[in-house]
Amino acid sequence: MAQKLWEKNVQVNADIDRFTVGKDREMDLYLAPYDILGSIAHITMLESIGLLTKNELDILTGELRNIYTIAEKGEFIIEDGIEDVHSQVELMLTRKLGDIGKKIHSGRSRNDQVLVDLKLFIRSEIKTLVELSDNLINALIRQSDTYKNILMPGYTHLQVAMPSSFGLWFGAYAESLVDDLTVMQAAYRICNRNPLGSAAGYGSSFPLNRTMTTRLLGFDSMDYNVVYAQMGRGKTERIVASAMGSIAATLSKLAFDACLFNSQNFGFIKLPDEYTTGSSIMPHKKNPDVFELTRAKCNKIQALPYQITLISNNLPSGYFRDLQIIKEVFLPAFDELKECLRMVTEMMSHMTVNTHILDDDKYKLIFSVEEVNRLTLSGVPFRDAYKQVGLSIEAGTFEPDKHVQHTHEGSIGNLCNDRISLLKQQVIDGFDFNKIETAEAALLGKS
Amino acid sequence: MAQKLWEKNVQVNADIDRFTVGKDREMDLYLAPYDILGSIAHITMLESIGLLTKNELDILTGELRNIYTIAEKGEFIIEDGIEDVHSQVELMLTRKLGDIGKKIHSGRSRNDQVLVDLKLFIRSEIKTLVELSDNLINALIRQSDTYKNILMPGYTHLQVAMPSSFGLWFGAYAESLVDDLTVMQAAYRICNRNPLGSAAGYGSSFPLNRTMTTRLLGFDSMDYNVVYAQMGRGKTERIVASAMGSIAATLSKLAFDACLFNSQNFGFIKLPDEYTTGSSIMPHKKNPDVFELTRAKCNKIQALPYQITLISNNLPSGYFRDLQIIKEVFLPAFDELKECLRMVTEMMSHMTVNTHILDDDKYKLIFSVEEVNRLTLSGVPFRDAYKQVGLSIEAGTFEPDKHVQHTHEGSIGNLCNDRISLLKQQVIDGFDFNKIETAEAALLGKS
Amino acid sequence: MAQKLWEKNVQVNADIDRFTVGKDREMDLYLAPYDILGSIAHITMLESIGLLTKNELDILTGELRNIYTIAEKGEFIIEDGIEDVHSQVELMLTRKLGDIGKKIHSGRSRNDQVLVDLKLFIRSEIKTLVELSDNLINALIRQSDTYKNILMPGYTHLQVAMPSSFGLWFGAYAESLVDDLTVMQAAYRICNRNPLGSAAGYGSSFPLNRTMTTRLLGFDSMDYNVVYAQMGRGKTERIVASAMGSIAATLSKLAFDACLFNSQNFGFIKLPDEYTTGSSIMPHKKNPDVFELTRAKCNKIQALPYQITLISNNLPSGYFRDLQIIKEVFLPAFDELKECLRMVTEMMSHMTVNTHILDDDKYKLIFSVEEVNRLTLSGVPFRDAYKQVGLSIEAGTFEPDKHVQHTHEGSIGNLCNDRISLLKQQVIDGFDFNKIETAEAALLGKS
Amino acid sequence: MAQKLWEKNVQVNADIDRFTVGKDREMDLYLAPYDILGSIAHITMLESIGLLTKNELDILTGELRNIYTIAEKGEFIIEDGIEDVHSQVELMLTRKLGDIGKKIHSGRSRNDQVLVDLKLFIRSEIKTLVELSDNLINALIRQSDTYKNILMPGYTHLQVAMPSSFGLWFGAYAESLVDDLTVMQAAYRICNRNPLGSAAGYGSSFPLNRTMTTRLLGFDSMDYNVVYAQMGRGKTERIVASAMGSIAATLSKLAFDACLFNSQNFGFIKLPDEYTTGSSIMPHKKNPDVFELTRAKCNKIQALPYQITLISNNLPSGYFRDLQIIKEVFLPAFDELKECLRMVTEMMSHMTVNTHILDDDKYKLIFSVEEVNRLTLSGVPFRDAYKQVGLSIEAGTFEPDKHVQHTHEGSIGNLCNDRISLLKQQVIDGFDFNKIETAEAALLGKS
Repeated sequence: MAQKLWEKNVQVNADIDRFTVGKDREMDLYLAPYDILGSIAHITMLESIGLLTKNELDILTGELRNIYTIAEKGEFIIEDGIEDVHSQVELMLTRKLGDIGKKIHSGRSRNDQVLVDLKLFIRSEIKTLVELSDNLINALIRQSDTYKNILMPGYTHLQVAMPSSFGLWFGAYAESLVDDLTVMQAAYRICNRNPLGSAAGYGSSFPLNRTMTTRLLGFDSMDYNVVYAQMGRGKTERIVASAMGSIAATLSKLAFDACLFNSQNFGFIKLPDEYTTGSSIMPHKKNPDVFELTRAKCNKIQALPYQITLISNNLPSGYFRDLQIIKEVFLPAFDELKECLRMVTEMMSHMTVNTHILDDDKYKLIFSVEEVNRLTLSGVPFRDAYKQVGLSIEAGTFEPDKHVQHTHEGSIGNLCNDRISLLKQQVIDGFDFNKIETAEAALLGKS
Repeated sequence: MAQKLWEKNVQVNADIDRFTVGKDREMDLYLAPYDILGSIAHITMLESIGLLTKNELDILTGELRNIYTIAEKGEFIIEDGIEDVHSQVELMLTRKLGDIGKKIHSGRSRNDQVLVDLKLFIRSEIKTLVELSDNLINALIRQSDTYKNILMPGYTHLQVAMPSSFGLWFGAYAESLVDDLTVMQAAYRICNRNPLGSAAGYGSSFPLNRTMTTRLLGFDSMDYNVVYAQMGRGKTERIVASAMGSIAATLSKLAFDACLFNSQNFGFIKLPDEYTTGSSIMPHKKNPDVFELTRAKCNKIQALPYQITLISNNLPSGYFRDLQIIKEVFLPAFDELKECLRMVTEMMSHMTVNTHILDDDKYKLIFSVEEVNRLTLSGVPFRDAYKQVGLSIEAGTFEPDKHVQHTHEGSIGNLCNDRISLLKQQVIDGFDFNKIETAEAALLGKS
Repeated sequence: MAQKLWEKNVQVNADIDRFTVGKDREMDLYLAPYDILGSIAHITMLESIGLLTKNELDILTGELRNIYTIAEKGEFIIEDGIEDVHSQVELMLTRKLGDIGKKIHSGRSRNDQVLVDLKLFIRSEIKTLVELSDNLINALIRQSDTYKNILMPGYTHLQVAMPSSFGLWFGAYAESLVDDLTVMQAAYRICNRNPLGSAAGYGSSFPLNRTMTTRLLGFDSMDYNVVYAQMGRGKTERIVASAMGSIAATLSKLAFDACLFNSQNFGFIKLPDEYTTGSSIMPHKKNPDVFELTRAKCNKIQALPYQITLISNNLPSGYFRDLQIIKEVFLPAFDELKECLRMVTEMMSHMTVNTHILDDDKYKLIFSVEEVNRLTLSGVPFRDAYKQVGLSIEAGTFEPDKHVQHTHEGSIGNLCNDRISLLKQQVIDGFDFNKIETAEAALLGKS
Repeated sequence: MAQKLWEKNVQVNADIDRFTVGKDREMDLYLAPYDILGSIAHITMLESIGLLTKNELDILTGELRNIYTIAEKGEFIIEDGIEDVHSQVELMLTRKLGDIGKKIHSGRSRNDQVLVDLKLFIRSEIKTLVELSDNLINALIRQSDTYKNILMPGYTHLQVAMPSSFGLWFGAYAESLVDDLTVMQAAYRICNRNPLGSAAGYGSSFPLNRTMTTRLLGFDSMDYNVVYAQMGRGKTERIVASAMGSIAATLSKLAFDACLFNSQNFGFIKLPDEYTTGSSIMPHKKNPDVFELTRAKCNKIQALPYQITLISNNLPSGYFRDLQIIKEVFLPAFDELKECLRMVTEMMSHMTVNTHILDDDKYKLIFSVEEVNRLTLSGVPFRDAYKQVGLSIEAGTFEPDKHVQHTHEGSIGNLCNDRISLLKQQVIDGFDFNKIETAEAALLGKS
């Protein structure tokens, strides 16, 4: 009868086991260090409310820090037959410390444990994404400054339209990423709130001190309402995925431009040989595989919020096992986006540009509006100026002055790259990553 | 020949005209007042750089304000044969003032004009969405406070699991909306930057003062890089749509809960009769049509970012007419979301709850964990407490104390509704809507 | 008390009414003629099982045919205060015939009535889509034949790669549409099954003869299981929308090619003036607005299945009001796709091509592989041939023979357009539209 | 110089290599046996047009069959440093046979090679999906027959509405799957066409015999136009993914019903213990994890067409490396769907139902419409019958006869399961899988 009570006396069959565990063991490796951080904070709080002795806390904390070191070295594994990261950590503790190891679970459930793991993981990944975006923005600004005087045709409807410049082109993507970081910051704010203590989504009758774990883990605040804390599963991932999708959209568009400008029909840019593939028999071919793959990977990332929405939508409140599947599409996406950011930074830093594009006569007419404006500013009535230029074009006698004089903010002659850099720095400062570093170091006894 | 120059001498056929104009004339009605505001700011700046005389500015401003008044009254129309709002405004000006009316277009193109219209429209709509969300949050907090002592079963896996309360349930959705407003604020920041002066996406050779129009229109800053300003088309809409989707996801989930709890199989809530449809022969039926439609409309809104992404993705930089189609899915979506917010506020305010749910024996076991915790806190070792409760359940003698004592932050006995309200107020204050009101009033001579 | 029984004695307020009716009255206009056809079939069956007299049937049929004629002329309207098409038709009948008009609803519910309306509407729309696709395929085949000898460069990675031809280019899109029609035919089959008699999704205790209505309406078979018949709502629309998305994807890709090839950087095609917009001051500009709008509209249509999925997913079996919202995104999409098919057919029929593209030296190397193969076929070992051509390219002495000799099936010299046309005809014949025309004519007394 | 010609003399760096190879080596393992089949067919054709000797053909075929056997045993690996399956097969051939091994690539490019691999792989996977769907349909029909007399409440708006039965419920999902197979058949038809011979998308100057490879590989026909053949990449996957999504949607809905009906608030079904997880302290909990995971996995699969669309949309014609990324989302999805089909078949076969649901008084009123109809059929005028039943309900005296008498096609008393089974068999027969089995056996010398 004890068995009837304490163990499930049915053998779950192997197929079902494989089906339900799915990719969890693989996915949970992403979460291991964060699971340990969460546990240290949790037991520190448990001691403060009398559910652990000081001695138990010290012993458990010491061993959890040892396991953290293992995870940090990339040596943490989930053993065969162990279901997830939580069980593996408990196993390692009880092997070493005996039954006391089980006490790390008092006053919480697997639900709030995985929620806190996810949030700690995500905010760490966001930090890396912000750093990599920063690098790319800087590289783009550098190239914008380097090529600020090199003109290129600007297109509307893919029709040759107006003078543009490489200064503008590189700088545009830098500014785009700054806006993407603003979106990411909102996602970070949603994420950086403490779900610990919400248990299975309905709280606990233990007198937990959630304010304390919030502070220990460096969260901005807590997810107050425990039902809402559980509701954050899926929602947090969707919001973060949308923000990732925003960076991805910028990279995808940049990659599209690069593939186009690299075509022989444009010939605007030159990619370094080691970043292209070619054909020995067709030496003119420089296939921009890295940009094509970046575009595709980033377009895949843009589908991520939709995957998460489809999995989590139209479910009532409360936990469902469905939410587990989000992990397998969401967690690896960070690696993919980070890889794209790194490659694009490399590519954009080594890209060179064709400085003589506008020698080609097919771009001559981009200066027609310039000419009209020039005449207007010099006093010729607009209508007359317009007519005069129009007639010379029709007559085939239009010979443009290819020197442009754009002075307003954000134009060819006044790129405002410093303003963009400043804006970027303000956004990045708003993340306040120091706070989480300090908190995590303290938990690990490194402060 | 003049004709050859100044007019296109081919007759665009009626089918093509209908196809290309599409729903533009209908959509542009949303933009009319904002188009006028943008024009007033633009000509004020033009005068400052000498492209308009003071007198011209005064005359044009006066008439634009007249047209604004017409638009405010909902009487602005786009006449037959007039392509869009910009042409209609110009037509009204030139009818009244003659050729001077055309001067409002100096130094800009239709591209930056529609961009600024969209941004002014969006920020105004966001303001309304925030106000409506505020109302709903307040209504939910009120209901949470009202019903804070009414228990209900909490579910995991849709299995009866733990004690929960209506205080928690109402409050959870309030807090969810606060997070949604945080996401919306990032969208607002992206939106609240000035694209005016970017012309067709490559700037202008006129010495425009974009800093001035930024200030006049109450924007936080400008979209500096003119190529990026154009790139903001589609991107801004997508980011705003994602934020709308976040509110919509919360409403959809709430609606799902309400439909479920309204089923005879739950019987947790009671919807007011005027919000349900029924069947005369089946008086027990209370079809929750409003919630079902809310759910569906909000799920449709959640598809909006994907529509925008599909339309704008994999296009190189530069303007494409494709972007016009975004208007017809994006602009009406605000009305839909506002309507849902209003209806849900009504519904949630008038909902009553079943105060005797837990009298039903099928919910008895939700107190089993409570009982174990109670014994543990009273000194019984956890294992013994667990066994004792388990055995009494097996023996069918388990009689729970249905009084719960949850004290930690965010739990049944400590809802933290004041903290959630405070968080909400901080987020709303961060929008700084006053600034745009002041700026717009000044442009209209109302300050 | 009678009132308590027969009328709902609460006043549904105007806001709720507007919210719940939504766009239904507008959408139901699409369904009017099909609602009438369904009713004629239904009452014919009712008479056969004794629920109507022969005389009642004749009177009702006569009047329904009158209303059909009104709908056919586009003069059917849903009056103010009338909720939907079903109520409007009943109102028109009872006005003319008295209470007997209500008998058309015996043995069915609004659920199976709208299901049958939708299916009859959809199959009619599919018929038109197939006809328009047929026209476009024929136009593409004609152009392929016309330009079969005009070479153009073929690209991989947007890099100049191999010889291609306009024969291939036009023909490829013809064949693509044939496959799209195969997908559409599966959607048609799913659609062309009779839901009538499923009532509210659980059938009826009346001895309905569903086999008879299946035959009368020209359906291939019935949706047998009544629970499944109701489940078809949303599912049918999603499957049809996917098939529409397949046609849309082909048009979108074709439009993308056209926009690219119309750029001055390619200059491969020439669009008729009346299908482009330009700029008087930049006479070189030929903005391909129609293709850009086609691309955007078709990309929007590709989002349609996702909208429907989001609305209908994660709902348990049984009717929900959510499904009503699908109508407002689904029904108008047919008009949009039909319009795109018509415009693209016009455009493709009037497009002319640049017959001298390959005179440009930048395309010279597309013949390098040709040269290697030519040498190989003439007996030179492959390695030697490859080396010989490679060396001449490196030395800058490579002068290609620009005459290609591709003979295999589907290649430049052997387009197989007749085979593609044959395949198309086989697919179209498989729809068997005659059957539905015959059935509908019989119901209308026109056979 | 030879080096300059025959090798790329730049070192592609390791990061780039990792980025560009991505998951290709892992993904290509799915394709290995099909790559070999394609090669055998290709070289058989090459011999027939004189590009291989009979002896070379025999040697190559023999060795390719050996490699096939290795792949069949699951022992095929792609060695470190080898980029893809095509290179690995060539390596194995040249190791054993010398330079002759390279001849398998004459007259084709990697593009049509991977296209044919994908198509052979897909059609084989579709065959398995159809078999598994067949099994599930049979299991559902069996359960429908077993429980045909067990009534349950039917819901509309999740409101108790009408009598339904488990016969109907099980059978509905069987019929739904039959329609899904119809959609899958269209996908199969699109897929089962031969792309081989299209080379890089522009065909070849070799006199290939594509009709012959079409026959050898058992394809229904060829993708005629070579530009279209290449265009099939991405398109084929999207169409197949949509069809997979249709099956997934049915499974997801079934899983949703099962999770709902398994809730204590319904208690309609009982899942076998080994398929649920529970809680020792809450013996009433039977968490339906398998159904929740099925729902989530199937919802993820429903996002697949959107991922593919986002990756492949808005690309002009011609090959792009982007298409490679589709493999990593598409190929593993078959395993996921097959696993879901297997698990659901197991679950549905072992599910038992509650035979006494309707004893609960809350379902009493589902018989009210029955009662009205019964009176009507017995001669009472409808209005009177309706009033009589309504009054008895109001008075609380309504005592229904719980015996239902539904006789029409597809209703409780006449499930038409035999008709559904027949329809299923007709659909399955339409696939004509025998043809491909015969063709593949012949290529492997097994016929």
